[in-house]
Amino acid sequence: MKILNKRQIIEAFDVDAVTLLLKKGFIAYSQRQVQQPPVQHFLFEQAAGDCCIKSAWLEGDEQFVVKVSSGFYRNPAQGLASNQGLMMAFSAQTGEPQALLLDEGWLTALRTALAGRIVAELCAPASIPAIGIVGCGMQARLQLQQLKSLTACREVWVWGRNEETLQAYRRDVEAEGFRVNITQDAAELAAHCRLIVTTTPSREPILQAADIQPGTHITAVGADAQGKQELAADLVARADVLLVDTLAQCADYGEIATAYRQGLLKSTPIVELGTALAQGIKVRCDDQQITLADLTGLAIQDVQIVKGILARI
Amino acid sequence: MKILNKRQIIEAFDVDAVTLLLKKGFIAYSQRQVQQPPVQHFLFEQAAGDCCIKSAWLEGDEQFVVKVSSGFYRNPAQGLASNQGLMMAFSAQTGEPQALLLDEGWLTALRTALAGRIVAELCAPASIPAIGIVGCGMQARLQLQQLKSLTACREVWVWGRNEETLQAYRRDVEAEGFRVNITQDAAELAAHCRLIVTTTPSREPILQAADIQPGTHITAVGADAQGKQELAADLVARADVLLVDTLAQCADYGEIATAYRQGLLKSTPIVELGTALAQGIKVRCDDQQITLADLTGLAIQDVQIVKGILARI
Repeated sequence: MKILNKRQIIEAFDVDAVTLLLKKGFIAYSQRQVQQPPVQHFLFEQAAGDCCIKSAWLEGDEQFVVKVSSGFYRNPAQGLASNQGLMMAFSAQTGEPQALLLDEGWLTALRTALAGRIVAELCAPASIPAIGIVGCGMQARLQLQQLKSLTACREVWVWGRNEETLQAYRRDVEAEGFRVNITQDAAELAAHCRLIVTTTPSREPILQAADIQPGTHITAVGADAQGKQELAADLVARADVLLVDTLAQCADYGEIATAYRQGLLKSTPIVELGTALAQGIKVRCDDQQITLADLTGLAIQDVQIVKGILARI
Repeated sequence: MKILNKRQIIEAFDVDAVTLLLKKGFIAYSQRQVQQPPVQHFLFEQAAGDCCIKSAWLEGDEQFVVKVSSGFYRNPAQGLASNQGLMMAFSAQTGEPQALLLDEGWLTALRTALAGRIVAELCAPASIPAIGIVGCGMQARLQLQQLKSLTACREVWVWGRNEETLQAYRRDVEAEGFRVNITQDAAELAAHCRLIVTTTPSREPILQAADIQPGTHITAVGADAQGKQELAADLVARADVLLVDTLAQCADYGEIATAYRQGLLKSTPIVELGTALAQGIKVRCDDQQITLADLTGLAIQDVQIVKGILARI
């Protein structure tokens, strides 16, 4: 079995090749070519942690992939990253373990950020005066980095609960060529931005319907387990169109779950990402629509990013 | 992260300590102290393979465990074991990977065999003229080995579909002090035996109700996924009492699933293994009862066997 550490994984990572693989993966998923059993979830209440186990096989592939990915939100206080995890590839011919990727959560973070870029290609308005990033952790940095090739906009608003982490975010991101405005008022962020990415593990809504301007696209990547929610149900219900990575997960525990359960989405078109990609159409029809993408994360993304790495080892 | 190979794992294995841990694990499971999300299943039809991913956390434990376990039934033809797999321990405080146990399926095989022994303690009749083993693979050997300390009986009947593998089984097991009769007629086996363990991945029933003598106990460990079945539904329905590792799995895809779905078990007492262990009672009430145990395998067993290994490393 090959064992790869984070440095080796980063060296083998090719963003364009992986982006293409991810698109193919979303399409294969929506075309029912993927065996992807329901996600396993753990909640470690006392340690402020959670964990999910995702696995999938793209039928016909030589390998299947199992991923263990956790978030322990008090880790940073002891100098550890919140997100931890690893991915494994196994032969789909013999079951033998083929590769262990000790990515420390990096591959999950990257494939999530790349999904954000793929979604923005389909949903972002033509004119983006500023990008809004809700949260100021690792995912908040990666999402912004991946949007760099999509838009010429370098004006950023970032929301966080803590002045110090906001300042650190500004410092890091300005070094990459952005102008960063920091705020602890999410409504202020929404007033300035037409492309917003929410990246927190929040369990209470941060953005409300009244905050959002017409023509805004929001990608929500934080809600990936029961109880997490970044957007108020009335905001989700206000979207003109919803894009989901998979309705099964999103309706169960994604960002749209509360609004879905409350029956607020009965007249909202809900489009699966792989379906939109397969059809080659833009999800946004005009510059006044509010579009909203709910990304809970698919195991097929893990399969595809592992394939991208192993192809270059 | 500690990485242990199969040799190191076998060296650190203490059968009595692990048996005790397994009993505690079954009890904790039945007392709802275990987070154990539903098992993930894959089916690799063209390769004649399947895989399950099991994970669990005994609340309060320092670690949680994820196990990937597969059966690829054409592996032996290329000199590989059918069963493959590995187990991993992660910190329940930080999510960091702690240990990778490259056991090649050995720990799964052992904890399954030990569960068979634990069940036999509760269910076996007082007098055992012969032990019946259905199947002649690795699990068929391990189950018999683990019964050695339970009963003085050394008379064995083994059933298989293939003369050559039956002969190999006889050779191996006679070297351990058993007298072995081989047969390709399961009814002949059942006519001689009062303690029967079924260990195959069969998808059609091997034993029928009419084959079984009063006073027989059967432990079925083969059925661990949709479509697998070793015992006819009428045999399952004939049992005076059913012992299950967990009703959730057994009723869904275990040995009793077909009879359960057909509504044949409405008047059969079904007892969870952990409940029986906690109460310290024998499941069998008299020497004429037919008792039947359905073991689909619990992730808490993996947790406990990993703890047993790591405690001695």
